[in-house]
Amino acid sequence: MKCKVCKGHAVVDVRRHNAGFCKDHFVEHVRKQVAKSVKEFSMFSPDERLLLAVSGGKDSLALWDILLDLGYDATGFYLDLGIGGYSGRSKEASIAFAEQRGAKLIVRSLGEEHGYTVPELARLTGRVPCSGCGLNKRYEFNRAALEEGFDVLVTGHNLDDEVATLFGNVLHWNTDQLGRQAPVLEERVLGDSPEPVLVRKVKPLVRLAERETAAYALLRGIDYIVEECPMVEGNTQHRYKEAISLLEEASPGTKHQMYFGFLEKAAARFAGSGDGAQIVRCTSCGAPTLDLGQEEPRCSFCKTKALALTRKEQGSAKEC
Amino acid sequence: MKCKVCKGHAVVDVRRHNAGFCKDHFVEHVRKQVAKSVKEFSMFSPDERLLLAVSGGKDSLALWDILLDLGYDATGFYLDLGIGGYSGRSKEASIAFAEQRGAKLIVRSLGEEHGYTVPELARLTGRVPCSGCGLNKRYEFNRAALEEGFDVLVTGHNLDDEVATLFGNVLHWNTDQLGRQAPVLEERVLGDSPEPVLVRKVKPLVRLAERETAAYALLRGIDYIVEECPMVEGNTQHRYKEAISLLEEASPGTKHQMYFGFLEKAAARFAGSGDGAQIVRCTSCGAPTLDLGQEEPRCSFCKTKALALTRKEQGSAKEC
Repeated sequence: MKCKVCKGHAVVDVRRHNAGFCKDHFVEHVRKQVAKSVKEFSMFSPDERLLLAVSGGKDSLALWDILLDLGYDATGFYLDLGIGGYSGRSKEASIAFAEQRGAKLIVRSLGEEHGYTVPELARLTGRVPCSGCGLNKRYEFNRAALEEGFDVLVTGHNLDDEVATLFGNVLHWNTDQLGRQAPVLEERVLGDSPEPVLVRKVKPLVRLAERETAAYALLRGIDYIVEECPMVEGNTQHRYKEAISLLEEASPGTKHQMYFGFLEKAAARFAGSGDGAQIVRCTSCGAPTLDLGQEEPRCSFCKTKALALTRKEQGSAKEC
Repeated sequence: MKCKVCKGHAVVDVRRHNAGFCKDHFVEHVRKQVAKSVKEFSMFSPDERLLLAVSGGKDSLALWDILLDLGYDATGFYLDLGIGGYSGRSKEASIAFAEQRGAKLIVRSLGEEHGYTVPELARLTGRVPCSGCGLNKRYEFNRAALEEGFDVLVTGHNLDDEVATLFGNVLHWNTDQLGRQAPVLEERVLGDSPEPVLVRKVKPLVRLAERETAAYALLRGIDYIVEECPMVEGNTQHRYKEAISLLEEASPGTKHQMYFGFLEKAAARFAGSGDGAQIVRCTSCGAPTLDLGQEEPRCSFCKTKALALTRKEQGSAKEC
């Protein structure tokens, strides 16, 4: 196979584009796909400060690499979830990349900030690990971005991630989540204050499949952590990816078509589905939460944290 | 496993209902599911004349059996598609069932009615067989129902069929087809004439999975044709079924949830999507077709038939 651009020896083929690329032109192709998404969805401008959620995996490190090369002011944010050796190794990979590129990295730890790790949280609350982990990451990413004065929170969700989420939402017809599934979620303010309570969130990798970000990271010599989170076993998102990959294999372009077709032809039909309830401030932490008529509204994060810490205390008391 | 109803030995388990059934109570369960769909979606009443499209397969013969047992006036309609030995054997199975049950069966043949078989049509038009076959079946089923004075056209589409169609429509976001995907499509009239141009179409098996109609047919001793259409190879519908079955296996009830969730929470959002163009009569055959601004509008069926017959004639001329 030959490179689509220079006709040299191709090292990567992208079946859904029916094209092969040599190393240099594949790197250029990936950068262009990111630049195209940033422009098409008005994600951010060069004078904005970006906070990039970094896991040490291929997607977030590849994206960081691309954003820096495109000249953006992108600071990394690593949240230590306390998942044994996996978290240790993914933190090391994130720090090593930041040092190598001379990029700023903020490191926080769930244990230090809140007093529990993800495995502890799962055990204490009886919730599946991915659910508690997602809740805490969303909360902490937003909090860090607001506290540190960033304009935008950037995440490394790729096309496969977004299609799997879309597929799950369609299997269950989660209309409110379908109404919010987009490559950009605008910031939200509350009341008269001009300060946002939710920072703008963007996903610049939506035009790139998992396989392509992995190839990019390999070709760029990025030392990312290959192992998957050990708690992900049986995750439904994985099954959705497997089912869709069957179809992509038989008909390249299926994932792209499903995701961008949704944005183009269906997303607007679900807009506002979840806006029945008003947003108010959590009386514990001030974060935005749905007004469900409680006297003292508390956000899901605070409720989960309180439950976990109460049970942790009860556990310690019993041991004494 | 024990029967959910009588605690006797279960011969069928239905995982998504988390229930087992003995032979008699499974037959009763299946009949109830059909009766429930007929009532819930107001499909038809006991005084209406039903025309049931019969293929000789498990779904249509099981449905015929159930409708007769429920006391409905259900006539079968078999359309010979001319697919070699497969069509011969499926016609025989349909005739044998009708004779055994003392039921009325109308038999027509695509070759006699229009001068081509499905394999010939595919070869002459260069279209995939399933596409030409579907177009001709829809046309002929509607024509037969209207000509023979039936109130309703009944088809044996089961839950798996409907979910696969829904999945395909969602993968491509075919908004007009999503707007029309329902267990009942009401009849349509044109202009001032009270006579319908499209007969009401209903799918009473939407609450039953493929596996359940097969078990019903086996337990009832129905001699259906097991072989699949030999032209179906590589059919995308098959791949969609395979992908969804992966998920159903891991999480029983996925198919039901996707289909009925769609009807409940999403279908209305797509209603009217395909109604941009007016419906007019085809100048060749009088059937309804979309008004695309042509001087002499012709329906897809007539255009395809004309193309096939012209090419057939040219072929014969060459041979002479």
